[in-house]
Amino acid sequence: MAPWLTDWRGRFTGEAMAIASPASTEEVSALVKLCARHRVPIVAQGGNTGMCGGATPDGSGRSILLSLRRMNTIRRLDPEAREAVCEAGVILQTLHEAAETEGLRFPLTLGGKGSATIGGLVSTNAGGTQVLRHGSMRAQVLGVEAVLANGSVFNALTVLKKDNRGFDLKQLLIGSEGTLGIVTAATLKLLPAIGERRVVWAGVPSLAGARALLLHCQDVAGNALEGFEVMPQQTLHDVVAHLPNAREPLAEPHAWHALIELVAERGETDRLGELAERMLASAFEAGLLEDAVIASNERQADDFWLLRDSIAPAEREKGPAVQHDISVPVDRMPEFVEVAVPQLEAHWPGTEALAFGHLGDGNVHFHVIAPPGVEPLEWMTGDGKKISAEVYELVTAWHGSISAEHGIGQLKLDELVRLGDPVQLAMMRAVKQALDPHELLNPGKLVPLAPAAGSH
Amino acid sequence: MAPWLTDWRGRFTGEAMAIASPASTEEVSALVKLCARHRVPIVAQGGNTGMCGGATPDGSGRSILLSLRRMNTIRRLDPEAREAVCEAGVILQTLHEAAETEGLRFPLTLGGKGSATIGGLVSTNAGGTQVLRHGSMRAQVLGVEAVLANGSVFNALTVLKKDNRGFDLKQLLIGSEGTLGIVTAATLKLLPAIGERRVVWAGVPSLAGARALLLHCQDVAGNALEGFEVMPQQTLHDVVAHLPNAREPLAEPHAWHALIELVAERGETDRLGELAERMLASAFEAGLLEDAVIASNERQADDFWLLRDSIAPAEREKGPAVQHDISVPVDRMPEFVEVAVPQLEAHWPGTEALAFGHLGDGNVHFHVIAPPGVEPLEWMTGDGKKISAEVYELVTAWHGSISAEHGIGQLKLDELVRLGDPVQLAMMRAVKQALDPHELLNPGKLVPLAPAAGSH
Ligand SMILES: Cc1cc2nc3c(=O)[nH]c(=O)nc-3n(C[C@H](O)[C@H](O)[C@H](O)COP(=O)(O)OP(=O)(O)OC[C@H]3O[C@@H](n4cnc5c(N)ncnc54)[C@H](O)[C@@H]3O)c2cc1C
Ligand SMILES: Cc1cc2nc3c(=O)[nH]c(=O)nc-3n(C[C@H](O)[C@H](O)[C@H](O)COP(=O)(O)OP(=O)(O)OC[C@H]3O[C@@H](n4cnc5c(N)ncnc54)[C@H](O)[C@@H]3O)c2cc1C
Repeated sequence: MAPWLTDWRGRFTGEAMAIASPASTEEVSALVKLCARHRVPIVAQGGNTGMCGGATPDGSGRSILLSLRRMNTIRRLDPEAREAVCEAGVILQTLHEAAETEGLRFPLTLGGKGSATIGGLVSTNAGGTQVLRHGSMRAQVLGVEAVLANGSVFNALTVLKKDNRGFDLKQLLIGSEGTLGIVTAATLKLLPAIGERRVVWAGVPSLAGARALLLHCQDVAGNALEGFEVMPQQTLHDVVAHLPNAREPLAEPHAWHALIELVAERGETDRLGELAERMLASAFEAGLLEDAVIASNERQADDFWLLRDSIAPAEREKGPAVQHDISVPVDRMPEFVEVAVPQLEAHWPGTEALAFGHLGDGNVHFHVIAPPGVEPLEWMTGDGKKISAEVYELVTAWHGSISAEHGIGQLKLDELVRLGDPVQLAMMRAVKQALDPHELLNPGKLVPLAPAAGSH
Repeated sequence: MAPWLTDWRGRFTGEAMAIASPASTEEVSALVKLCARHRVPIVAQGGNTGMCGGATPDGSGRSILLSLRRMNTIRRLDPEAREAVCEAGVILQTLHEAAETEGLRFPLTLGGKGSATIGGLVSTNAGGTQVLRHGSMRAQVLGVEAVLANGSVFNALTVLKKDNRGFDLKQLLIGSEGTLGIVTAATLKLLPAIGERRVVWAGVPSLAGARALLLHCQDVAGNALEGFEVMPQQTLHDVVAHLPNAREPLAEPHAWHALIELVAERGETDRLGELAERMLASAFEAGLLEDAVIASNERQADDFWLLRDSIAPAEREKGPAVQHDISVPVDRMPEFVEVAVPQLEAHWPGTEALAFGHLGDGNVHFHVIAPPGVEPLEWMTGDGKKISAEVYELVTAWHGSISAEHGIGQLKLDELVRLGDPVQLAMMRAVKQALDPHELLNPGKLVPLAPAAGSH
């Protein structure tokens, strides 16, 4: 059981009475009924790749760890309807491969795809680099099956494009991190497979300039635009220093860099290369680009993406850092970064603040690296914690979210209570108490059960 | 007050203590607090165009009718972000016109657009003829502001493309028919205005054939396909007989007819006429079409749509009818109609059953016209009611919905209790009791409060 009692990042370790791994919805239902009768808390776990300790039980040892990994059947994959019904334990990569063999794809992916499960992705409403075009997990979910706190089975797997028989209850389960129900299966949307892609690396003078370029690319490329990631020069520099044999894609430095991906479905007649060239040429003309290069082959395209995907390990070499997965309204993100980076660096001398990621979603990873030479643990629990509090306050003042992608889990519960809107917190609490009156489903995660002390 | 105490169809009339028409969110909040203190039930009303008596109070005269029509400001219309923040009382057509002046459009429309309000559309999750491409109201809503049962203001108007701070509570309010909160404003998605359209009338040998044609059109025209409506020959015949100067678009009769609309945004370079011709030519080649004609100008295009929009009045001439707004999984609709029409007509001799509407959404209007010569009221309340019960049982057996578009209101509450999934009904009830413990918001609508007698 030990490997499943610590979260992926190694920040939380808990205890459990037992691990249970049922193989069917009926078994999950029977188990939940038993737990309900004996008031045993239940912590659902999929691939254990979550970023907020949501799948890690508390230290009491009273809970059962309910692993969904044995429920790993794709019950149906319907190429005509473009739907897949997956059990909760199906691993994301397995679904990608199954869709691929039918000439289809599932348009959501992330670094943990070899372990993350459909149940976990639904329960965290996961994101990734394709949200710009396709939306997050919520947008891919057409139906949900779940076992509720009393053991009854909520079955809404059948896809009805229109259905107005009352509250859309499956929306409550999506993103509820195991606090309202155990997701046992989901019906997911599939799309035609990709036939071709073009990957572009572009240099721009500012983050506002990157956003102007993004709007231009959306205008010209429309639906073909699938990814648009940004990073500052310093970050690119650090990544290239970290990776053996890597080099910067452009000859000169630029304040900001954008990684742009265009795709076309199989059999689409659009000539994507032409589109990419037209898009860049008009961007140059409009003064939106300093420099750009189109990857000349798949190998170079992969190299460009490797630069993006190596930011985290490159950063680790520079010392301890506090990381924030935040969003603000899409059009305000450049301004936010321009304000927040110097403010944080000024308040915390010696730190280095950086932002990179999904500009088109108004969502960046906002990291603050410790001053050189600090004792890591001490810094993380001391100044690091205060820095995070400041970042979250700033984001809240900008009407943004302290968790754009990764959820709340146990990691951010205090901050949610501190900074969340009291009306919304009260609503969450009421819904939770209505559907799980004995607080058996993932207690201590996501839902601030006790009214916040001194709440406004 | 009298005009607002009877529903649009004239099927329900109620009483109210008073009508209140606040002009701001603060006034709504103050009013709801007052009502909560005195336990006065509140019935929200927008344009009073709803189809299920949802905005009509009961006969007790204890309720207040809360009209949102004075809250009719478009607070913000942002062409760059393509968002509009509308107060609840903004009339749909007003929003259409405001978007138009900015070169944008709001991609949802329906027959009641001159009266229906944004608050009503959000609260009923309304549909229309553009759902095929754009989805129903839920897909257009980016943010919601609402006053909850205790008078507190739920404010989620700010649009964050990614936000995982817990349950997506605005989803609960969408489609809740005034039972969970009073919607005071919404942030809505806008799209570029349409530059051009092409309207096609096509004859096909069967409803299954119509669906095959639809899939073909989706493949060829992709996102340009905005509407696909179907009707049987008999219905077209009745419409043409009803309308002065109308004629059937095609020379010969066909078992089924499809009305197809392709659109292109302003400034899009696609030549839409060519696309329409290519789509039809390949459909002919594939044997998917018996005959088809492209409207040669806007006038003819309007004439085609007039045939579709005149089905209801044409039907009224034929005598009383029971009407059902139903859905089944999209791919099963042709089979359903082929089974249901003869079954109903066999069980109820002399009736005429017909289905028409939004094939691509798996949603048809399924009407059963009385045998000639019956006494209307007697038939409606006698056989008519039994026929409806049979239609709803059939739809339920096919895993479909007894209300695809129009909601439940007071009209269908009994049938929801009778045929709904007990687990989902219990969940709805629990959520309702959590958020409105004194049952002040639109009691007797949508939510089956007392556990169903003899429920499974
Ligand atoms: C390398 C890497 C990259 C990542 N990149 C991204 C990214 O780009 N975007 C992003 O959004 N996330 C990302 N993540 C985070 C993570 O992959 C997602 O949150 C994922 O959805 C978790 O799935 P899981 O099966 O591992 O769930 P777990 O970690 O096992 O659980 C996560 C939460 O969901 C609950 N849960 C799990 N299964 C169920 C179920 N069946 N029913 C009810 N509740 C359940 C758990 O109780 C817990 O609260 C990344 C993770 C890694 C390791
Ligand atoms: C000619 C015609 C054609 C139609 N075509 C369609 C169609 O194609 N598709 C479709 O889906 N519908 C259609 N409808 C139905 C109707 O237009 C929609 O249901 C519309 O959304 C109702 O809006 P309203 O403002 O008139 O709401 P009302 O009728 O006033 O109220 C409807 C329900 O919403 C609640 N409500 C209203 N405003 C609020 C608010 N601010 N806060 C909380 N609750 C509120 C009411 O209590 C009631 O339960 C049609 C109606 C007509 C008259």
